[in-house]
Amino acid sequence: MAVDTFDTYLAEKTAYIEDKLTPALEQVGVPTALYESMNYSLMAGGKRLRPMLVLAVLEALDKPIERGVPFAVALEMIHTYSLIHDDLPAMDDDDLRRGKPTNHKVYGEATAILAGDALLTRAFSFIAESYRERTDVSALTTVNLIAELGKRAGATGMVGGQMADIEGESKRLELNELEFIHEHKTGDLLIAALRGGGYLAEASEKQMEKLTRYGYCIGLAFQIQDDILNVEGDAAELGKAVGSDAERQKATYPSLLGLEESKVRVAALIASAKAALAEAGLEHSALTPLADYVSNRKK
Amino acid sequence: MAVDTFDTYLAEKTAYIEDKLTPALEQVGVPTALYESMNYSLMAGGKRLRPMLVLAVLEALDKPIERGVPFAVALEMIHTYSLIHDDLPAMDDDDLRRGKPTNHKVYGEATAILAGDALLTRAFSFIAESYRERTDVSALTTVNLIAELGKRAGATGMVGGQMADIEGESKRLELNELEFIHEHKTGDLLIAALRGGGYLAEASEKQMEKLTRYGYCIGLAFQIQDDILNVEGDAAELGKAVGSDAERQKATYPSLLGLEESKVRVAALIASAKAALAEAGLEHSALTPLADYVSNRKK
Repeated sequence: MAVDTFDTYLAEKTAYIEDKLTPALEQVGVPTALYESMNYSLMAGGKRLRPMLVLAVLEALDKPIERGVPFAVALEMIHTYSLIHDDLPAMDDDDLRRGKPTNHKVYGEATAILAGDALLTRAFSFIAESYRERTDVSALTTVNLIAELGKRAGATGMVGGQMADIEGESKRLELNELEFIHEHKTGDLLIAALRGGGYLAEASEKQMEKLTRYGYCIGLAFQIQDDILNVEGDAAELGKAVGSDAERQKATYPSLLGLEESKVRVAALIASAKAALAEAGLEHSALTPLADYVSNRKK
Repeated sequence: MAVDTFDTYLAEKTAYIEDKLTPALEQVGVPTALYESMNYSLMAGGKRLRPMLVLAVLEALDKPIERGVPFAVALEMIHTYSLIHDDLPAMDDDDLRRGKPTNHKVYGEATAILAGDALLTRAFSFIAESYRERTDVSALTTVNLIAELGKRAGATGMVGGQMADIEGESKRLELNELEFIHEHKTGDLLIAALRGGGYLAEASEKQMEKLTRYGYCIGLAFQIQDDILNVEGDAAELGKAVGSDAERQKATYPSLLGLEESKVRVAALIASAKAALAEAGLEHSALTPLADYVSNRKK
């Protein structure tokens, strides 16, 4: 897929997904401030990478992307709740996210905590309610989606990664500890997106395994690229300060391996991701440019 | 069921449930502090009323109680997460719960937030994983359980009730607003327990409707009784201060209706709950003494 074609693809898919987010929230019977707080963060922008991966797997396997919508929306709800909670004063204490005030700066801490809880809860009920009404997704597939999502989002996955990240702030991390954080804090939810797409598209066991590998690779590449951009990115383009990791003496790939070696790792991971796609017979799909997109991004 | 028999019943069922809680947590691959924080609050005692209701419905409909265990455990995880988050400094700012330091006092705020998030997530994945392995519960029933739990625990249920409670602290509540808070903050999770039990026991539509009514009545009676105990309860027996509601000028049933009228309401609600059981043909079960237990409790 040519670069300009892929840019159009990304723009179309982002718009497609964003249209589905607000309608997935419940509004009747929900206190106004709670609903508004949930919607504020859900609609605060972002790459919508996790939903994008779900749809790309369905496309790659010649299935209608619409089948992936409830799961894609649920992933974005979980990603959003994790950002709300991570930004809290007791966690990273951030005032801004993507150039906008963080949830608790707008709605207060109590509401932000509850909005996160409610988004996390809604993710699961939305999957259950939505697929229950469809005839093209079996109840067993729905149960598999929920098990997968819970495993990757919870204590063994994203929440565990965030916990390790917080614990790591007060010590000098080794590379394997840093990789644990990245794998779980970011990678696991990408893997959930890919495997969820695989369940919905009735991927073969081998394809599931390769999609998992692809997700692991692009997840880690994404985080190393994040570290690299914090060293040599453009603050205006990124919408956030650069050099902050070094200032806080935070362990990063560049600080542990050097900048050049970090770039080599990114390239190697993207090559592995593409190899996994080829082994699954899925290389002629948007998953290939998506891997490049993750590693070439400037913001 | 005679009182002493029922006391034995409660003790047996509590022990039965408590044995299932810790094994339901994941430990391998989970940061130690996160696991310990989750387990600390999950095992911090309490009446285990929600699990009890699940098992009682199965018994009432002559089904093995063991079938209810994953759902019962998930309910207790959700109840526990809600207590951890409610106790946070940004919410009710409580240092003690059931006479023990609250989660954030022991593990710190960041860990407490994450432990709550992880318990909430685990509730859903535990249901999905556990029932997927059983032959006596269909995938559709599992999906129904998750939809039910999400609806009652999220923005339209428990989280919405907590939000209304927080908003209500800064204004003079009307009785209907107070009832909204009680219905959602406490009642909805009891209803989820009963309806979940109903799904698992293949209750008829009429029985589901009556169990819902029963849950609504005992939930509201439970909260009014809570208000009453805050006026005339025994601090030592309760394990917490009495008179605190009046001191904080908190709207309660006694403050809005008077103590005597509040007691009349409790009695009427329990009578309604029992009538609903009779209409469902479930009056000869532990659900009858459980209704009395909720309203007669001294702590």
